[in-house]
Amino acid sequence: MGVNGAYACVVRTKVASTNGGKPMKDTIFIKPGQMAIEDVDKPTIQAPDDVILHIVRTCVCGSDLWNYRGIDATAPHSQNPGHEAIATVDAVGSAITTLIPGDFVIAPFTHGCGHCAACRAGFEGGCLNHDDNFSMGAQAEYMRYQHAEWSLVKIPGQPSDYSEDMLKSLLALADVMATGYHAARVARVKTGDTVVVVGDGAVGLSGVLSAKMRGAKRIIAMSRHEDRAALAREFGATDVVAERGDAGVAKVMALTNGEGADAVLECVGSEQSVDTAVQCGRPGATVGRVGVPHNAKMDLRPLFFRNTQIAGGPASVTTYDKQVLLDAVLRGEINPGKVFTKSFKLDDIDAAYQAMDKREAIKSYVIVD
Amino acid sequence: MGVNGAYACVVRTKVASTNGGKPMKDTIFIKPGQMAIEDVDKPTIQAPDDVILHIVRTCVCGSDLWNYRGIDATAPHSQNPGHEAIATVDAVGSAITTLIPGDFVIAPFTHGCGHCAACRAGFEGGCLNHDDNFSMGAQAEYMRYQHAEWSLVKIPGQPSDYSEDMLKSLLALADVMATGYHAARVARVKTGDTVVVVGDGAVGLSGVLSAKMRGAKRIIAMSRHEDRAALAREFGATDVVAERGDAGVAKVMALTNGEGADAVLECVGSEQSVDTAVQCGRPGATVGRVGVPHNAKMDLRPLFFRNTQIAGGPASVTTYDKQVLLDAVLRGEINPGKVFTKSFKLDDIDAAYQAMDKREAIKSYVIVD
Repeated sequence: MGVNGAYACVVRTKVASTNGGKPMKDTIFIKPGQMAIEDVDKPTIQAPDDVILHIVRTCVCGSDLWNYRGIDATAPHSQNPGHEAIATVDAVGSAITTLIPGDFVIAPFTHGCGHCAACRAGFEGGCLNHDDNFSMGAQAEYMRYQHAEWSLVKIPGQPSDYSEDMLKSLLALADVMATGYHAARVARVKTGDTVVVVGDGAVGLSGVLSAKMRGAKRIIAMSRHEDRAALAREFGATDVVAERGDAGVAKVMALTNGEGADAVLECVGSEQSVDTAVQCGRPGATVGRVGVPHNAKMDLRPLFFRNTQIAGGPASVTTYDKQVLLDAVLRGEINPGKVFTKSFKLDDIDAAYQAMDKREAIKSYVIVD
Repeated sequence: MGVNGAYACVVRTKVASTNGGKPMKDTIFIKPGQMAIEDVDKPTIQAPDDVILHIVRTCVCGSDLWNYRGIDATAPHSQNPGHEAIATVDAVGSAITTLIPGDFVIAPFTHGCGHCAACRAGFEGGCLNHDDNFSMGAQAEYMRYQHAEWSLVKIPGQPSDYSEDMLKSLLALADVMATGYHAARVARVKTGDTVVVVGDGAVGLSGVLSAKMRGAKRIIAMSRHEDRAALAREFGATDVVAERGDAGVAKVMALTNGEGADAVLECVGSEQSVDTAVQCGRPGATVGRVGVPHNAKMDLRPLFFRNTQIAGGPASVTTYDKQVLLDAVLRGEINPGKVFTKSFKLDDIDAAYQAMDKREAIKSYVIVD
């Protein structure tokens, strides 16, 4: 889950030799339902704190599908806002002191400065020092990564040192696992809590894993797809509720002695999912929402009388990776890469989108190099 | 601030002798702009966990004014929902083990059971064991206090042991001080924080005092009334912003190096005040709102992209009184009773309402016995 839908995309033309004629493969949004690989100019350093990344692995995000499905669609023939990657550093701007060419990194979709009030508080998606806080162009051979000094997360060694399964888990730290963790963090999941997770996509499943990491005692995953429910259980779900809407809420209440959950992770973003999330919490519960909201205005009065708290937004990817997630992956304590259930080559990017669109993959993994 | 506006009021008739003919003085809402004292039947024990309270001091709440001003008005000739009192225990139901007649108590406007999931988490306004969680009828000689076993807060000694100033501070613990404290607690105000308080009524001023108690380093009170600004400073405000709306937000930003506050206490409940509160916070800030919401639906998307958190609702009066506020008052560490700037006798209840309606009093204090 990224938030790039809110950002304008670059309209790409086929390869031109304006920058010395070095072409690269890039994913182009042709029209709703059709992605293609075309040659475009390789990106170049444009600011002192830029880094050019050579992409190793990328993937397709649920939020990319809004575009693919023609909802919030960008202009025809524009660069698709892929925003998840692990990569090696190809070139660094003059202000970069933390990285050198050849370093292996996670490329978080958020680009914080690391020292403003927002970043210090662990909310770098709202970094106060620049407005262009989000990635795009990751579904390509190379991408320009702006404000890279603090934001990129160094991985020990080189890509060849890791198994494909480990690369998948490292890639999950560019967005989806950190976003699930964000839901759990802003919902203040703590030891012993009962947690409901609304949404069984890759983010929801990451939310289950995150609730488990933070010590939740009971984790109720709302899922009606058997493959996803199975992974939810593997990630720590103690109960699975297949019902949706009012029936789903009733089931959660039955499972919680009529009390509701201490915390709810809302990982969809629809009006119904937010409503379900609010109703599943006990009085004073926090709903951590990370589904990019596509709902209309909301009546906050029912929340008031139950003291329901609403938190969430773009994840703090760099913060979580550096604080807890990268170590947990490298030690083998978590395997968030299991959300990647189908693999594709970059040339087959349209098939990668299709597999997610048709729910044949929980999340599509794309091998670039 | 109470939440009784959400509850239907009892329509009273002049004294009838249905319960033995014991009359008492009660406040009656005649019509918008007119309150009167009339004789009605003295209330009786109706449930095993009832307590009949002999009111010592009561007061008028900002939320009572919605009715008085003809907004959300109740039926003509109904009992007004006064919900703040200190009192002595007149009679107890058969299930009451914590109190005996003669005890001196704070009568919180919330009536939690003390042991359900909501109460255990410190959100007794949403007590799961009964729906009638709120007081009414406190502007009278006697009131029936339902679900009293855990909820009433015992004060050492008798009313005659305390100065009038101390009685004022004890009365403030029935709602207004606890409500200000709730705003600060749900906004997670902690040591060193920069806090903005929107609203300079009795609750907003109590919010300033609460932020100070919780260790805030900088407290910016938004107030444009000199008497209230002066009390805000006495309670701990380090800065006062007189501007409202966008100009007020700009002033807060100028005072916080363009960053915004860590926490914002929203103590009004209007659409503009909520909007101001949201804009005054840094990314990831929490808005603790305790103003009963009278606003329309709200677009939550701007909150999402700044990770702004919205929390709040009815205060947890018993919890805060027992945990921290009563001790702080009895030790003289806080003087929340200073919000009562005019005193009235119960017979002059209409004048007490008028003084608040015309902003001649921050909060009107009513002497009953």
